[in-house]
Amino acid sequence: MAEILKIKTPQDLGAAPLVVQMKDAGVLRLVLNNPPANTLSEAMLDALDGALADAAQNGEVRVIIIAANGHLFCAGHDLKELTARRSDDDKGRAYFKSLMERCATVMQAIVNHPKPVIAEVNGLATAAGCQLVASCDLAIASEDAAFCTPGVHIGLFCSTPMVALSRTVLRKHAMEMLLTGEAITPSHAREIGLVNRVVPVEYLEKITQQYAANIAKKSSYTLKVGKQAFYAQAEVGLAEAYALTAEVMTENMMAQDAQEGIGAFLEDRSPEWQDE
Amino acid sequence: MAEILKIKTPQDLGAAPLVVQMKDAGVLRLVLNNPPANTLSEAMLDALDGALADAAQNGEVRVIIIAANGHLFCAGHDLKELTARRSDDDKGRAYFKSLMERCATVMQAIVNHPKPVIAEVNGLATAAGCQLVASCDLAIASEDAAFCTPGVHIGLFCSTPMVALSRTVLRKHAMEMLLTGEAITPSHAREIGLVNRVVPVEYLEKITQQYAANIAKKSSYTLKVGKQAFYAQAEVGLAEAYALTAEVMTENMMAQDAQEGIGAFLEDRSPEWQDE
Amino acid sequence: MAEILKIKTPQDLGAAPLVVQMKDAGVLRLVLNNPPANTLSEAMLDALDGALADAAQNGEVRVIIIAANGHLFCAGHDLKELTARRSDDDKGRAYFKSLMERCATVMQAIVNHPKPVIAEVNGLATAAGCQLVASCDLAIASEDAAFCTPGVHIGLFCSTPMVALSRTVLRKHAMEMLLTGEAITPSHAREIGLVNRVVPVEYLEKITQQYAANIAKKSSYTLKVGKQAFYAQAEVGLAEAYALTAEVMTENMMAQDAQEGIGAFLEDRSPEWQDE
Repeated sequence: MAEILKIKTPQDLGAAPLVVQMKDAGVLRLVLNNPPANTLSEAMLDALDGALADAAQNGEVRVIIIAANGHLFCAGHDLKELTARRSDDDKGRAYFKSLMERCATVMQAIVNHPKPVIAEVNGLATAAGCQLVASCDLAIASEDAAFCTPGVHIGLFCSTPMVALSRTVLRKHAMEMLLTGEAITPSHAREIGLVNRVVPVEYLEKITQQYAANIAKKSSYTLKVGKQAFYAQAEVGLAEAYALTAEVMTENMMAQDAQEGIGAFLEDRSPEWQDE
Repeated sequence: MAEILKIKTPQDLGAAPLVVQMKDAGVLRLVLNNPPANTLSEAMLDALDGALADAAQNGEVRVIIIAANGHLFCAGHDLKELTARRSDDDKGRAYFKSLMERCATVMQAIVNHPKPVIAEVNGLATAAGCQLVASCDLAIASEDAAFCTPGVHIGLFCSTPMVALSRTVLRKHAMEMLLTGEAITPSHAREIGLVNRVVPVEYLEKITQQYAANIAKKSSYTLKVGKQAFYAQAEVGLAEAYALTAEVMTENMMAQDAQEGIGAFLEDRSPEWQDE
Repeated sequence: MAEILKIKTPQDLGAAPLVVQMKDAGVLRLVLNNPPANTLSEAMLDALDGALADAAQNGEVRVIIIAANGHLFCAGHDLKELTARRSDDDKGRAYFKSLMERCATVMQAIVNHPKPVIAEVNGLATAAGCQLVASCDLAIASEDAAFCTPGVHIGLFCSTPMVALSRTVLRKHAMEMLLTGEAITPSHAREIGLVNRVVPVEYLEKITQQYAANIAKKSSYTLKVGKQAFYAQAEVGLAEAYALTAEVMTENMMAQDAQEGIGAFLEDRSPEWQDE
């Protein structure tokens, strides 16, 4: 990780946005665009948060892909940006707290987003970059991907990344990544459940797009209520989870899209969603 | 899924019960008997719930297997039955709510059942059928089994099924099934923890029976307290889980069967359970 | 299990301690030393608890390995010790409760320990012995290891062991071990997440030591705050987990070791930890 993170930031990005947005047929592609490290700097977090907020409101967006420009997916926080604030009057405490909360807010914006979010991972996803992958609903990785939570190497345990990581993989797998800081291969990431699928680099974009396009064909209303119910029910006990989801199912049944979808199914035709 | 679900219901089942019960040497075999789809219609839910309630009271039943008749394990709710209620005064809302709660009650009756319940899965287990598999304590699948939560295809997210699914497999695996609606193979179901074992079709019943017979040799009392403690401790924090189970272990130690079991072990003989 | 557990206890251990302690370069090796069964007798629990408490205070200890002497890792509770107390006035109830709570306290002392704890498992880890492995942060097993929760064979469900087991592996995997009581192979234990890695017997100690030495190079302060935050955040909802860990990250950033570690990283030199 050491070498990679210390490559200099690009000299001048000009007017290139930190998050490039491309929209096609209901799929919004958000590309982290500050190579080589694509760090989650304050500006990058703002750009990502803004793009997610816009997408939540935009009826033309049905599924979101988060990808990155270059050979490194995302290196996590910008250590130089953090270190610069040690000269603040409070030695940076207020800034650090604010940045960590900002980052946690963006991660939760993915989890709570009304639309499915898919991570498309090429290269290394480290620290908060790994957290970003874990926070997405699905993740597709290339054979050149790698994942680590290396904070332990620099005296800063990956404590916020582990919130997402430990809700995605089993305990001993999370602990091995956190305590050793070592990177894992994409195939191991698939085995432990951190990513759904590993594909050759040259097919990564195409296959992630296929997943997205497939999901984009569904009712946006249905995806929204289902995704929100998923994360809500995961936090409560069994009886409460069933009470909650029985209610969600009832409301879903009353919605236009369930009526249309079930009707289309019984009549053997394609549904036409109203997304409501 | 489309074709399979739309096969017509059998013309006349005559007096054949919706859930066939076979009991042999402590193992109760409950067979969903409304092929081809074995839908969890209101009548099927009632039949299954009744059979489970009887089994809970029946001292001769030590282990339960849930299997199905035909080439499809269970297709979930009966969409025609649901759709017919759209003509109710309230457009079906009260009925849908009542049915979802009924279904959730049956699923929880499996989890809270005093006796271990094993799913024996041949063919497709879809939506609430997949939930049924996830809700059982163990699941054995044939090489012809498949599993999906396809509600997203028809505008009705599998929100109640995901309560059981998300407590059985990891988050990204559950999300892939829920968002894509695609069926997974039995070997993938085994890899992600949805089933314990996959066997050739011709051995499915025999091997499931072996699991059941093996467990049926244990003390029913011990199985009951252990199973109940398992799901209870899973819902609380670590300290509370230990407080709860230390109490359970103490009571278990005082019981007749632990005294007999430990005694038999130390005396190198077979135990004779009183099931208390 | 039967034969192994009934091998007689060694005739005279003389002054040999129940838990042998070896410390080398920041790695404390605790060896259960009551072969052949290394049962978690009251005396063994006291010895282990004492060693853990000492290690928590000892600044020279950075990582702990729990290993065992002989061909059986740990057979769980001492059934003869338990049975002897059936002649107490209360038939042993108070003693059983006290012992179960004592054991649960030791297991939680591992989870809550400020230093990472690695299980090094050769031979069978059964009942509370399996719980001990599940309770450690990491586990390395030899190809001769095996794992089971066989209480169901003797009328005493492994209710306290399942607290650790069910927080380490998926539900159906835990249930299969608990309901059948059968031992699983080390490779299956790795597949289900009970152990991190399986190695040939002759390399077990060496490779476990490498893991420990690697982790011992990190800041003890950082490991402590990270490990404690890991288990704390695992018990609460997502928003609360992020609130908690954003606070932890902020405090961690203010600590000497993060300043040193990040500085060393940016200056391309090795950090020198103050462990604070």
